[in-house]
Amino acid sequence: MTGMSQDKAITLSVDAMGGDQGPEIVAEGLKRFLQADPAASVLLHGPRQRLEPLLAQSGFGDRLQLVHAPDAVAMTDKPSHVMRHGKSTSMWSAIEAVRERRAGACVSCGNTGALMAVAMLRLRKVEGVNRPAIAALWPSRNPQGFNVMLDAGADIRADQDDLLAYAMMGASYARNGLGLERPRIGLLNVGTEEHKGRAELKVAGELIARAAERGAFDYVGFIEGGDIPSDRVDVVVTDGFTGNVALKTGEGTATLISGLLREALMKTALSKLAALLATGSLKRLKTRIDPRQVNGGVFLGLNGTVVKSHGSADATGVAAAMALAARLARSDFSDRLAGRMATIATMQPDAGEEVRA
Amino acid sequence: MTGMSQDKAITLSVDAMGGDQGPEIVAEGLKRFLQADPAASVLLHGPRQRLEPLLAQSGFGDRLQLVHAPDAVAMTDKPSHVMRHGKSTSMWSAIEAVRERRAGACVSCGNTGALMAVAMLRLRKVEGVNRPAIAALWPSRNPQGFNVMLDAGADIRADQDDLLAYAMMGASYARNGLGLERPRIGLLNVGTEEHKGRAELKVAGELIARAAERGAFDYVGFIEGGDIPSDRVDVVVTDGFTGNVALKTGEGTATLISGLLREALMKTALSKLAALLATGSLKRLKTRIDPRQVNGGVFLGLNGTVVKSHGSADATGVAAAMALAARLARSDFSDRLAGRMATIATMQPDAGEEVRA
Repeated sequence: MTGMSQDKAITLSVDAMGGDQGPEIVAEGLKRFLQADPAASVLLHGPRQRLEPLLAQSGFGDRLQLVHAPDAVAMTDKPSHVMRHGKSTSMWSAIEAVRERRAGACVSCGNTGALMAVAMLRLRKVEGVNRPAIAALWPSRNPQGFNVMLDAGADIRADQDDLLAYAMMGASYARNGLGLERPRIGLLNVGTEEHKGRAELKVAGELIARAAERGAFDYVGFIEGGDIPSDRVDVVVTDGFTGNVALKTGEGTATLISGLLREALMKTALSKLAALLATGSLKRLKTRIDPRQVNGGVFLGLNGTVVKSHGSADATGVAAAMALAARLARSDFSDRLAGRMATIATMQPDAGEEVRA
Repeated sequence: MTGMSQDKAITLSVDAMGGDQGPEIVAEGLKRFLQADPAASVLLHGPRQRLEPLLAQSGFGDRLQLVHAPDAVAMTDKPSHVMRHGKSTSMWSAIEAVRERRAGACVSCGNTGALMAVAMLRLRKVEGVNRPAIAALWPSRNPQGFNVMLDAGADIRADQDDLLAYAMMGASYARNGLGLERPRIGLLNVGTEEHKGRAELKVAGELIARAAERGAFDYVGFIEGGDIPSDRVDVVVTDGFTGNVALKTGEGTATLISGLLREALMKTALSKLAALLATGSLKRLKTRIDPRQVNGGVFLGLNGTVVKSHGSADATGVAAAMALAARLARSDFSDRLAGRMATIATMQPDAGEEVRA
């Protein structure tokens, strides 16, 4: 997605367990990633006896190191349970390597709630952030091919200050993850007119507009659901409830249309021939909107970068999440974001006064 | 969509003004509708001197009657302004004909906020309904081809009792509009597990589950954004903020994919040939997911049926909205819904006690 150099050596911390399809898929994605990125190394966390057979003769030498963790977090485990009893899990171990700066970013396919809970507990929130957020990539009309949306579901609530923090963090992510110098930010609402929507959105809009200069982004104002994949914005800011529903609605719509298109093309002899002739074009389109290519929700607002890969990701998806984590590790994204957020703290008193006035 | 008989004579009240493209498009859609539905009559509201030339020699005789209204509501007019000063508008006149039972349903392409405000003022809310809702149709995997989602944006808030009312109204609409005897209802949330989401959603889920027998529907529990176009449910219940974002996100995603598909097929000589061969299949697919075919948000919870056509609808879209209004008028939908809602009032005290306990 960006032309950043792959020469810089980085290390990722990868949780081998917790994906729907077991560590085999993670190992397969890992091999593809390491082949494509010769300057990257990986610490792989999980039960040694389970992982060793998968990686025998993988030939990556020092670039791949096993870190033994006997237990795994299940998709059904409650976050609070994992926080209290999860020290021996591969997820915990993978986060710990980022905390101790043995790795520049962490990747996990596991339970999102547990991953966020352990990450908040061990990495701690960055100053100026009350609620961390998950940033998702969305296929779009923009030259970079993707827009950023946050919060995609870390927290079901967000007040005006949280939305301001999301704007700052989203801008920082778009700069370091997508290579956009001055991202355009929109605030998701039910209409673009200034008087529309919830009260906290009006206040958030004013706060974000005022933060634009300091945050090095442009604020385009309210946007609607139809603008999420458009080229009007690069970053979409919303609360985690709305963001999660929008993300899944978009995926569901894309799945419906692809399915109906496939059925339509398989219906008659003529359309089957057409599908055959158009194979190359349809494949390029599929790649363009394939959710696997944009796999990886990035946790924003913590002292350390964590990338959540889809639980159902295949090897292509896992490799894409690792490539995203590597890009963020190379740009020292986490430290840059923390620096940017520190400026919010100094803005806050002013902003509060003006809103009250 | 349903096999209901078109023999029954009905009259629609149509607002000729307020669409983005002027009354020409409404007149064109009207002609198509009257041709397709020989038992339907229409009262067309608007400035006589503007409408008469459009309808000269239309040949519908008594089935088409002009009702002079000199003014039109603009898209930028505030609802409160229209409520106070809108008596001479075509929108007001069109609603009035439903209030006086001269017509069985009203259709307008105008300003949604103003239309809802005038409809609430003149038609009044049905007993048992605190917030009226807009129900939208959504292309789906179901045999009926569409799912119902409400609220699509009448009100940005909805508490647990509103969500219960939406479930009852949505079931009634699915029965009368889509011909489903026992609709399946889902409550939109960020996960399907019972502990997920906002507090009011948990309470609403309990209320809806308890109302299922009396409302003659099945409650399937929490659903996610990806389920909106699925065959897991027929009716999706949510607040108007989330519903509006979801609807526009779905439309935006569909537009993005259609656009990229068109570009992909126009790219090479081979793919152009393929597109030519698949013309019939692609056209059928387009019709299936074409928003114009499902044009018409239905206002639920008022003493009278009002169908809001997209402001940007073309003649096909306008005719589709009129056909929907005719179907609802034929089924005495508004009276049936009012009858169903009256049962909520008798349920309320029980429900409240149990929730408090």
